[in-house]
Amino acid sequence: MHRVKVRVVEDALDANNTIARANRDDFDRHDVTVVNLMSAPGAGKTTLLERVLGDLGDVRAGVLEGDVQGSYDADRLASLHVPVTQLNTDPGFGGECHLDANMVRSALPALPLAAIDLLVIENVGNLVCPAEFRVGEDARVMVSSVTEGEDKPLKYPLMFRTCELVLVNKIDLLPHLDFDVDRFLYNLDAVHPGVQRMLVSARTGEGVEAWRDWLLELPARREVAA
Amino acid sequence: MHRVKVRVVEDALDANNTIARANRDDFDRHDVTVVNLMSAPGAGKTTLLERVLGDLGDVRAGVLEGDVQGSYDADRLASLHVPVTQLNTDPGFGGECHLDANMVRSALPALPLAAIDLLVIENVGNLVCPAEFRVGEDARVMVSSVTEGEDKPLKYPLMFRTCELVLVNKIDLLPHLDFDVDRFLYNLDAVHPGVQRMLVSARTGEGVEAWRDWLLELPARREVAA
Repeated sequence: MHRVKVRVVEDALDANNTIARANRDDFDRHDVTVVNLMSAPGAGKTTLLERVLGDLGDVRAGVLEGDVQGSYDADRLASLHVPVTQLNTDPGFGGECHLDANMVRSALPALPLAAIDLLVIENVGNLVCPAEFRVGEDARVMVSSVTEGEDKPLKYPLMFRTCELVLVNKIDLLPHLDFDVDRFLYNLDAVHPGVQRMLVSARTGEGVEAWRDWLLELPARREVAA
Repeated sequence: MHRVKVRVVEDALDANNTIARANRDDFDRHDVTVVNLMSAPGAGKTTLLERVLGDLGDVRAGVLEGDVQGSYDADRLASLHVPVTQLNTDPGFGGECHLDANMVRSALPALPLAAIDLLVIENVGNLVCPAEFRVGEDARVMVSSVTEGEDKPLKYPLMFRTCELVLVNKIDLLPHLDFDVDRFLYNLDAVHPGVQRMLVSARTGEGVEAWRDWLLELPARREVAA
């Protein structure tokens, strides 16, 4: 019985990858670089976007905002005067706990691809399923808050293993926590050796310049890789 | 196409409820009260259990520890000398982001039901899917950390709506956050009016006596309700 279930899951992921490649083709045709931004609920994805989206110079950014329901984060980002498109997984997609390639594909007609250079897809807050579904992105960034504890890379290894950059957020709270940064980084390297990481505070702004620069340089890195 | 998908989801939830009732019958036969404990990753479920499991008097407690993989939390709880059973959703269950009734049923033979009065099922850290699957519990408790922000009830309403108790954890960090407790409680009442809530700090111990007393009184409340 388990074998049948694994087979069904594999088929679903194959179908997802086919649609993700179609998304990728559309993004390439418009020369849009795409970031899939993931984290647990409340780790600070939206605040980290608020910190940099107004400071990207000539790079025209847009956001696809994924939520189970509501548009609270999209409303926050709208004040930054970047195009924000809301994508809800409830009710059309059964209240899914993640975005998949098909959901992103359904939102493409609403995205101003010809008018942007960088698309940030803010995924549903969840450390499990978003990691399983490629959506056509160039890079995956995950945010891990120091308030969540040092053990998270060990408990959610797929998420930490499949991203190109880990933003360790809320470091302004370190003096008030029993969080051991070295132990967290040790656990991170155990599941994804050498993955790029940045210590940041969306609240104070510490480290966010490096995050902005990483976003700015991503299109050039993508061309080198292609 | 969406209608077909919704129908499949409904069938799966019906099947889940049937198995949940079978679990419930087994728990009742052994007079075991069952709590389904849920939260986002890193909100403090395990630490809140560590705080109370050694202080339950005559009530014999056991824990079913749900994780995608690994046994980090089970190892932590083992030192409290309560029976802890590990249930991993990977690989047998495809790395699911939640526990369902069938997974809990598969663990029943490993649970010492005749030797315990209270079973706490620590679910996978996730604010979406665990709320959709009853596992045969008497009560649902969710932990929401103040570090996650005031908007969480609005963004994950099903989770907040289907629980009997909300533990608002990490209140020792309030002086260092921009978290407005009243606004959080206002949002909580908007999705689940009047639901019981406790402000606690697993770190300092503030408020955990009330959480322990709630657990101690749960079997009596269950009998009144039955």
